[in-house]
Amino acid sequence: MSAEEDTANHGRLLATVRGPQDVKRMTAEQLDILAAEIRDFLIAKVSRTGGHVGPNLGVVELTLAMHRVFDSPRDRLLFDTGHQAYVHKILTGRQDGFDKLRQRGGLSGYPSQAESEHDLIENSHASTALSYADGLAKAYALRGESRSVVAVVGDGALTGGMCWEALNNIATSGNPLVIVVNDNGRSYAPTIGGLADHLSSLRLNPGYEKVLDTVKDALGSTPLVGRPMYEVLHAVKKGIKDAVAPQAMFEDLGIKYVGPVDGHDLAAVESALRAAKHFGGPVIVHAVTRKGYGYRPAEEDEADCLHGPGGAFDVETGKLVAAPSVKWTHVFADELVAIADARPDVVGITAAMAEPTGIAKLARKHPDRVYDVGIAEQHAATSAAGLALGGLHPVVAVYATFLNRAFDQVLLDVAMHRLPVTFVLDRAGITGPDGPSHYGIWDMSVFGVVPGLRIAAPRDAATLREELREAIAVDDGPTVVRFPTGTVAADLPAVRRVGPVDVLAEADRADVLLVAVGSFGHLGMEVAARVAEQGYGVTVVDPRWVRPVPAELVELAAGHRLVVTVEDGVRVGGVGDALAQAMRDADVRVPLRDLGVPADWHPHGTRAQILADLGLTAQDVARDVTGWISRLDEQQAEPVRLPN
Amino acid sequence: MSAEEDTANHGRLLATVRGPQDVKRMTAEQLDILAAEIRDFLIAKVSRTGGHVGPNLGVVELTLAMHRVFDSPRDRLLFDTGHQAYVHKILTGRQDGFDKLRQRGGLSGYPSQAESEHDLIENSHASTALSYADGLAKAYALRGESRSVVAVVGDGALTGGMCWEALNNIATSGNPLVIVVNDNGRSYAPTIGGLADHLSSLRLNPGYEKVLDTVKDALGSTPLVGRPMYEVLHAVKKGIKDAVAPQAMFEDLGIKYVGPVDGHDLAAVESALRAAKHFGGPVIVHAVTRKGYGYRPAEEDEADCLHGPGGAFDVETGKLVAAPSVKWTHVFADELVAIADARPDVVGITAAMAEPTGIAKLARKHPDRVYDVGIAEQHAATSAAGLALGGLHPVVAVYATFLNRAFDQVLLDVAMHRLPVTFVLDRAGITGPDGPSHYGIWDMSVFGVVPGLRIAAPRDAATLREELREAIAVDDGPTVVRFPTGTVAADLPAVRRVGPVDVLAEADRADVLLVAVGSFGHLGMEVAARVAEQGYGVTVVDPRWVRPVPAELVELAAGHRLVVTVEDGVRVGGVGDALAQAMRDADVRVPLRDLGVPADWHPHGTRAQILADLGLTAQDVARDVTGWISRLDEQQAEPVRLPN
Repeated sequence: MSAEEDTANHGRLLATVRGPQDVKRMTAEQLDILAAEIRDFLIAKVSRTGGHVGPNLGVVELTLAMHRVFDSPRDRLLFDTGHQAYVHKILTGRQDGFDKLRQRGGLSGYPSQAESEHDLIENSHASTALSYADGLAKAYALRGESRSVVAVVGDGALTGGMCWEALNNIATSGNPLVIVVNDNGRSYAPTIGGLADHLSSLRLNPGYEKVLDTVKDALGSTPLVGRPMYEVLHAVKKGIKDAVAPQAMFEDLGIKYVGPVDGHDLAAVESALRAAKHFGGPVIVHAVTRKGYGYRPAEEDEADCLHGPGGAFDVETGKLVAAPSVKWTHVFADELVAIADARPDVVGITAAMAEPTGIAKLARKHPDRVYDVGIAEQHAATSAAGLALGGLHPVVAVYATFLNRAFDQVLLDVAMHRLPVTFVLDRAGITGPDGPSHYGIWDMSVFGVVPGLRIAAPRDAATLREELREAIAVDDGPTVVRFPTGTVAADLPAVRRVGPVDVLAEADRADVLLVAVGSFGHLGMEVAARVAEQGYGVTVVDPRWVRPVPAELVELAAGHRLVVTVEDGVRVGGVGDALAQAMRDADVRVPLRDLGVPADWHPHGTRAQILADLGLTAQDVARDVTGWISRLDEQQAEPVRLPN
Repeated sequence: MSAEEDTANHGRLLATVRGPQDVKRMTAEQLDILAAEIRDFLIAKVSRTGGHVGPNLGVVELTLAMHRVFDSPRDRLLFDTGHQAYVHKILTGRQDGFDKLRQRGGLSGYPSQAESEHDLIENSHASTALSYADGLAKAYALRGESRSVVAVVGDGALTGGMCWEALNNIATSGNPLVIVVNDNGRSYAPTIGGLADHLSSLRLNPGYEKVLDTVKDALGSTPLVGRPMYEVLHAVKKGIKDAVAPQAMFEDLGIKYVGPVDGHDLAAVESALRAAKHFGGPVIVHAVTRKGYGYRPAEEDEADCLHGPGGAFDVETGKLVAAPSVKWTHVFADELVAIADARPDVVGITAAMAEPTGIAKLARKHPDRVYDVGIAEQHAATSAAGLALGGLHPVVAVYATFLNRAFDQVLLDVAMHRLPVTFVLDRAGITGPDGPSHYGIWDMSVFGVVPGLRIAAPRDAATLREELREAIAVDDGPTVVRFPTGTVAADLPAVRRVGPVDVLAEADRADVLLVAVGSFGHLGMEVAARVAEQGYGVTVVDPRWVRPVPAELVELAAGHRLVVTVEDGVRVGGVGDALAQAMRDADVRVPLRDLGVPADWHPHGTRAQILADLGLTAQDVARDVTGWISRLDEQQAEPVRLPN
């Protein structure tokens, strides 16, 4: 969709939509125009802010149909992985907010109860919506309320085990509930797994194809080129009035199945949803859509259909506007390939995110040594345990926020068996625009309790390479290597190394030991310079390996008057907290202050903004440190007080 | 099986079995005798030690067949929820160990790498085996090793989402792998869910019944009474040579399906396994078994087929030998019913453990208000979020060790939405005979990072009732109530209450503040008495609510010379650790020592033995406290030292 077309459409109809009731009144012709205007709007707005493009272009007609058939907010519309809720936001009075999408104080990239009564689920992790829906339907049944519950779930999210658990329960309860499977054949990347093959076979069901053919012949529509099924579907935008119903595994489970319907045929989707609404039990509506539909750069993006550009992009090409920079992810991806070239036992695992985690690079070099398990972090961890039991060294690359879904598996399946599995946590710490459910701030605390698990937090490209190698060299237990989002920090060489600990700076006076965790190395250096101006000497160290707590760190602490830790993770159970415990155990009574992220829900914004809000800037930390150390001076000048 | 029969069999054949090779040589007649001897052995031994009875009686023939068809340890036999591995242990040279089953230093109740090269997976959490198997099969494929991988999984465990994730991946990989579905129609309790209905329909498949009828007619076997399908199966111990293969959802996924076969017909199971072994791809062998088979008290136990008696039981009746006592579970169950009687919005959720968690009592009183979601803790948490969004107050009752499987769901789905869900964690802390993967020692640390989550640790029956009521009264966020296994502690009244904190004892001198968490209240009182004998005054407090850290606890700490915390959970990130952080933040510089469970893998044994091993007895703690406080005295007598 070009800027010219955008201008041509003017979005006149869209401007009249202030809520779902406005969509209910429209004629078929108006709705066609509206759908086009929504796509123009999405592309125009998100190309300036960054955000999720492909998923939302794929659900325009689906969302319109849902708002025409159901009565939100009385009826409950739940979007699994809420990044496909932009159209829903547009239709529920939030068009104006898109200028500040995902920016501090602006519209959230996910549903938000604070924004609208039409939003319910704020969590952005996949595969959860059916479980919420089951609970809601049970509650309405028990309370005798007659309200529809509709959950939209992608075919990719269906590979997550929670969906299976939910489907089992939904089938048993028999409560009315509509599950819309938004089947675009890909989650981030093409969906893998037996289920995907099964859905694919449904799409290719002869009965269905026959109907499509008939319709196509009748319409004398566009010829077939390339990906046949998609083309067939998109060639027949009208005409499939109802479902062709292949006997499916869903019906084996006891859930009524309707579909597949062309998810870009508004009338067909509406018809299916109306049938589902009045069925009186659980129904799956299988809608086949195309991610990025209607926008060429997205449709033609083989990797992920322009899933979620992190920033502004060029409308013509779909390419990011910002100059490319070297990301932490790239450094990891390159080094992993180098390691794997030399070690045939090193294999990679991704949970449907080969490109975003960089493991795709290993897959291109050694395609037989990377396993994409789907959106299935639990299986990622435990199948890694199996691979390790079979003599390999798996590297599981996930976003930090997603490993939380496999805590029990990391604890018992991997660590209890002392298996050499390396978890690489990208987007650790404060991430930013995706808001609270994407923050990777929990890992060091939660996985810090796992016996025998070693956690590394590199500070720059050089230490990322080094610590990744060290991690993969460990053969008697699991390791974690965690680093933040964005551009990798400039290399910051150490003055010397004590055990695993890098000393980054030393002063004549050993007043303060500043423990700068991971990417806070540079911040630590700046803090030291500022505190030095006040006449205090600061030793800056990077522990490199934060679990177990290095004994050398405790010894260094004992040689200073004050210890300050600063980390990009929650404070409780964090690196500073663990060091304080180690110091208590060693009877080292030097006062310690631990700075980090409060365990709370932090809003969306840029990483820099959020860190500033939390007082995690060099200026703020320097002020804190100076205050604490000067207070110690004052107290020592006072007469001795016995404890009260 | 009576003691008389036990004596009659003498176990002569069983005594000759020192390893799998001995079973491979036996004739059909010998194997029949052996199966009977194994059952006698299991009943005789486990009736003395306690342990898992029903599951193991159900897999005698299955395990024999596996060891005859496959070559362990070269081929890998994996038991999901390892409590069904007793027969495997018997056949792999560990008969002698059963006298000390689950006792300190004795045989583990689960597979154990340290015990035998035939054991691989030590984790006892359900639904994991298929993921290990997928990883193992991939490793062997990549390394070019020709070894079979066989995973036994119960139909109950198949309700867990991990199995779905694994099946998807197994189907995609296409690697040879044998999945034995041990279908007894129940996990702990009867299996629920759409899958269970589907399996049930397979069992009742007309084609299968016809074969059975034919066979039965041919054999002129026992008449049908009661549960028809089971009776049919058990009536035809011989004869079903191969599978009747109904088109199943498994084949929709692309996994070959063989079955159902009578899991107590050794020849039939062997035949199916041999076919599966040579298939060259993933195969599901669906074996229908009967939990507790061959032992009347187990077969007739409607609740859970004598799943896992916690201690010695009477062989004639299956009833526990020990006198019944009031457990923490009973107190919870009674109080929940009382609360729910008064509040119609209170509903219960269990993950396939209605009886062991006590929630069955609520289900009997209000059957429409308890949901058994199957072995599906993730769904338990997120469907609870849905129920809460629908206006109800769900109480999710699980063992502490199992809530770890839903960390992400508790964090984002429940807590981020500030939903009133109460999680009741039974068997928290050191549990004992089930070993490391059942210890509930992680909860306070792991869930302690969840923003807005309140955690209560009652010390006795009275505070359990009270704190449960307080938890269910909270309407703006989740709560956890955690208590240990076993007999509830005697009521221990407070002297006074400060905020949420109960002061249990005070002395003339405020030397030591002893924070006794939860069930350690009595230990705290005894410690105080012992320390008092040394001339020091101890204030004993029970914080009752350990998260968030009560401000009153910090104030109390400030009024003492030493703070000691003692808790039944891991130390890192625990209650003591969190209090220390709160004291740092408040600039309260009283020394603190935090006692608890080291984050490590602790062996099986009784709870008392393990606590003693860890120095968590009144005697040990009193010695520690006296040592620390007297050292403080010495230091204060020294000349003042400036920090170095």
